[in-house]
Amino acid sequence: MQFQAPESLSEQIAQHLGRQIILGKLQPGERIQELKVVGDLNVSRGSVREALLILERRHLIRIYPRKGAVVSGMTPELVNSLYDIYLNLLEMLAVRFMAERTPADEQPLLQAIDQLCRRLGDERTDVAEVIDGGLEVMRKCYPVVANPYLEETLENFRPAISRTYYLVLANDPEEMQVSRRFFRRIAERLQADDHQGVTSVIREFGEHQRAVALQALARDESLTVEPAT
Amino acid sequence: MQFQAPESLSEQIAQHLGRQIILGKLQPGERIQELKVVGDLNVSRGSVREALLILERRHLIRIYPRKGAVVSGMTPELVNSLYDIYLNLLEMLAVRFMAERTPADEQPLLQAIDQLCRRLGDERTDVAEVIDGGLEVMRKCYPVVANPYLEETLENFRPAISRTYYLVLANDPEEMQVSRRFFRRIAERLQADDHQGVTSVIREFGEHQRAVALQALARDESLTVEPAT
Repeated sequence: MQFQAPESLSEQIAQHLGRQIILGKLQPGERIQELKVVGDLNVSRGSVREALLILERRHLIRIYPRKGAVVSGMTPELVNSLYDIYLNLLEMLAVRFMAERTPADEQPLLQAIDQLCRRLGDERTDVAEVIDGGLEVMRKCYPVVANPYLEETLENFRPAISRTYYLVLANDPEEMQVSRRFFRRIAERLQADDHQGVTSVIREFGEHQRAVALQALARDESLTVEPAT
Repeated sequence: MQFQAPESLSEQIAQHLGRQIILGKLQPGERIQELKVVGDLNVSRGSVREALLILERRHLIRIYPRKGAVVSGMTPELVNSLYDIYLNLLEMLAVRFMAERTPADEQPLLQAIDQLCRRLGDERTDVAEVIDGGLEVMRKCYPVVANPYLEETLENFRPAISRTYYLVLANDPEEMQVSRRFFRRIAERLQADDHQGVTSVIREFGEHQRAVALQALARDESLTVEPAT
């Protein structure tokens, strides 16, 4: 049994601001003013500066000398760059998981997929719950793959991926069912011990998400703000 | 012409501590005490806390709730995990560079390789200069590949790779010549437009470095401290 230390104040501030960025309440290109956050949340300037460094590590903001923090852009180029590296790393995770797993390792993963698919099939499910469910699935692979650098790098990319996935799901409710079918296929290929099949369905799912996110961006130009330099 | 903003104080502190970790003056598993750094460098506690977050992003330390910052471990498992993800991303960079490059893009890269090879051939060359030269070579590829996420992720892994590369070069001066031969072969394959050859020489170079680092660790048990949990 593991006791989790309570999250630091800067981590809490980072999660609060991160959620607003993922849900589009803080828009690409928008400035985040340290002193405004200090006043709004009634916290110290030091904690806010630490929170901004955490958000930069998670690719949600960029910090520019003298100018301060700006919400990361969502241009087609940036979305393509993001999916290029994320899908590469996700494939590495999947290949290693398939190679290293024992039958006992499969059970928690299949359960997480099953739970997510039930949520995706329920109309009352909130988009944020779906995103959390997807995270849970990925996290079941980490202990098997046992590469802390890969885990950390994937975890740092998740918030930016959650932002585009949110855009996908929020723009078209039918995408919930598309996700459900992809997750079912992954579970099926896993149970068939089809290594190549698992990675190719994951790749297909990722490419589908990328394409739908790019379409959503093309419809809403306000989102594709060039990052300030 | 681009003017570079002066580095923030926290960045300067991070680079100072980072160098000490790379050169082994701060050893794997060693605690870094915030207040000691504050006193030694005569800087504010806030700047030190920000510097530690930067070092954590660069994989050189881990920050544990309540316990504070500890220099990242260098067990065989961690070195293997590090090279697994780093070589995967470096290969991605090389494949994209080879696909996207124009003849004009090759020149700066070949010059950086040439300069590094001359340094490697000179007995008076300092190990730190070699590490900087290797960085320069990689940085010539970034503008061509134009993936800011890949660039950032590779840059964040460089300090940890520099630490193991330092271990390799410091343990055996002959390794300078081994590196020189690898860089010469990369330049040769690049000029021959041999895409597969470039990535396979890089892979071979990386696997060689990994193997020599693991041998050095096996000889010096004091380095393979388990990270505190």
